[in-house]
Amino acid sequence: MSTNDPIALADFGSFFAGGRTVRIEGKETRAIRFTQTASFQYDPNGTYHVEQAYVQYFIPARQRHPLPIVMLHGGGMTGTMWEQTPDGRRGWVQDFLRLGHAVYVVDNVERGRAGWTPFEEIWAEAPIIRNAEESWTLFRIGSAQGWPGRQAFPGQRFPVSAFDTLMRHAVPRWLGNNDAALRGFQAVLDRVGPCVVLMHSHGGEVAFRAVQERPALVRGIIAIEPSGFSPEVAAGSMTDKPVLFVYGDFLDATPLWRNLVRAGEGYAARLVEDHARVTFWRMAEMGIPGNSHFPMMDANSTDIARRISAWVIAEDPA
Amino acid sequence: MSTNDPIALADFGSFFAGGRTVRIEGKETRAIRFTQTASFQYDPNGTYHVEQAYVQYFIPARQRHPLPIVMLHGGGMTGTMWEQTPDGRRGWVQDFLRLGHAVYVVDNVERGRAGWTPFEEIWAEAPIIRNAEESWTLFRIGSAQGWPGRQAFPGQRFPVSAFDTLMRHAVPRWLGNNDAALRGFQAVLDRVGPCVVLMHSHGGEVAFRAVQERPALVRGIIAIEPSGFSPEVAAGSMTDKPVLFVYGDFLDATPLWRNLVRAGEGYAARLVEDHARVTFWRMAEMGIPGNSHFPMMDANSTDIARRISAWVIAEDPA
Repeated sequence: MSTNDPIALADFGSFFAGGRTVRIEGKETRAIRFTQTASFQYDPNGTYHVEQAYVQYFIPARQRHPLPIVMLHGGGMTGTMWEQTPDGRRGWVQDFLRLGHAVYVVDNVERGRAGWTPFEEIWAEAPIIRNAEESWTLFRIGSAQGWPGRQAFPGQRFPVSAFDTLMRHAVPRWLGNNDAALRGFQAVLDRVGPCVVLMHSHGGEVAFRAVQERPALVRGIIAIEPSGFSPEVAAGSMTDKPVLFVYGDFLDATPLWRNLVRAGEGYAARLVEDHARVTFWRMAEMGIPGNSHFPMMDANSTDIARRISAWVIAEDPA
Repeated sequence: MSTNDPIALADFGSFFAGGRTVRIEGKETRAIRFTQTASFQYDPNGTYHVEQAYVQYFIPARQRHPLPIVMLHGGGMTGTMWEQTPDGRRGWVQDFLRLGHAVYVVDNVERGRAGWTPFEEIWAEAPIIRNAEESWTLFRIGSAQGWPGRQAFPGQRFPVSAFDTLMRHAVPRWLGNNDAALRGFQAVLDRVGPCVVLMHSHGGEVAFRAVQERPALVRGIIAIEPSGFSPEVAAGSMTDKPVLFVYGDFLDATPLWRNLVRAGEGYAARLVEDHARVTFWRMAEMGIPGNSHFPMMDANSTDIARRISAWVIAEDPA
């Protein structure tokens, strides 16, 4: 399919998965005004539904592989990260669809369209949000010294001139919500059924833990620079399961990433012990230098999607 | 096009529009742990991008009308409200696409994938979120007395047994953000260009004010039970512009809605004075009884979409 052909979809849509009903009680009411015309007595006490995940799906008319790809964002991001690049190119949602994969894009608990709860009775702590300066270094666009002048690492493939648009993706996150995120993602898997999970960064911990909870549903795993893993790997949970790790360039530029790649290698070794079929891509050592922490937004994003799709077809998770 | 034929899209994707860069300063740093593997010193001080809108668009391969439809949610909702019904049917996004309209779905400032800011320096007040009890009555599903047993109004077309799924759509909102929402929506219009705006409830105030700011871009307006309007109607801003007001049933069941319909009639009269071509549908008086505040989710949602599409084609905004 050429990149400008129409996309034929068998279907697309969205659904919510998981969450729970809660009661808020004992709070004071207050008068509010919600447009210039309509005012109201606001009573926060009552019934709410919280901790659901939101999922948007796109099913191509002709599928190249029977298993859909479930895309799980990283920390402080939503599913939007998979569907646009900062410089306005198509994202991996469109790339994978055009390559014939059904795609499910998750806004997990607390993020984006999944909604969030403003009650400290439910999530006690304060959320954090990542600023541009921290993103610049953590996402390996450039060094801290390079930030004021927007001097990126030499050979950087991230669209640096559109860095501000990446910051529009950033949303608050609660550090205590990992278990809720795990439950939300499990509910997504239960609804989607057998699938390949493609996750990024903080999505690693959520997804690898979910694999341990739902080993029969997750038939293959693509981990883009995961920053977390499951604490245990149950015997038999990974047998013959294809797992792909993907890392970009400039990994030695921050101590955090030096450690995280080492942790990824260690986790990959544990998966091999449990008979997973592990593929480990350090792209810079494969003749593909220059990728940031966001290969799905880098200049060669479509090429990387093609390589990952080819890996899925070749490994044929079933 | 039959409802189960594949949908051929010329394109789809998303973008952010509007917003501004802010600096946060003078806050304390704190140690955080963001996965079981990765810990970090969190410094909230720095640069953020806030108050952008998120827009997802779907362009059909064959368009029946040249102007796209821009869908703007109501208060406490995101663009999700247009793409699924609580009982799992397709939403108006798919209906209007299948009817040949290009569709732009907005998550306006602070909602869904547009993100939000947790800093009181930017949005000082506390957000509110609507509970199930208030939604039950305000959205005219049933009376307050009917809530405990989920007894809806007789003839109710809202999928009452799936009411809890509607509550999963609810997200927090800031009552002081109407001006930011207006700016965000204007940025959306500037990016989309000439269009027809379809809005719901609280989206009325945002959209009608935006029409006054961008009269040349908004060529037609579909107001689904608007709860707010523009304070002024500038001379010449509405000349020959088609405007459709749509109201469901049970309007006398709450004083708020009695007043809001009256306000809608008054505003419609002002638009007529400025030579708008106004159509006013009280559906219950047109042989279509039983609709709630969410006709896009009611059992006859696809039929209503067809009627609105036919109105667009007949009025032919240009």
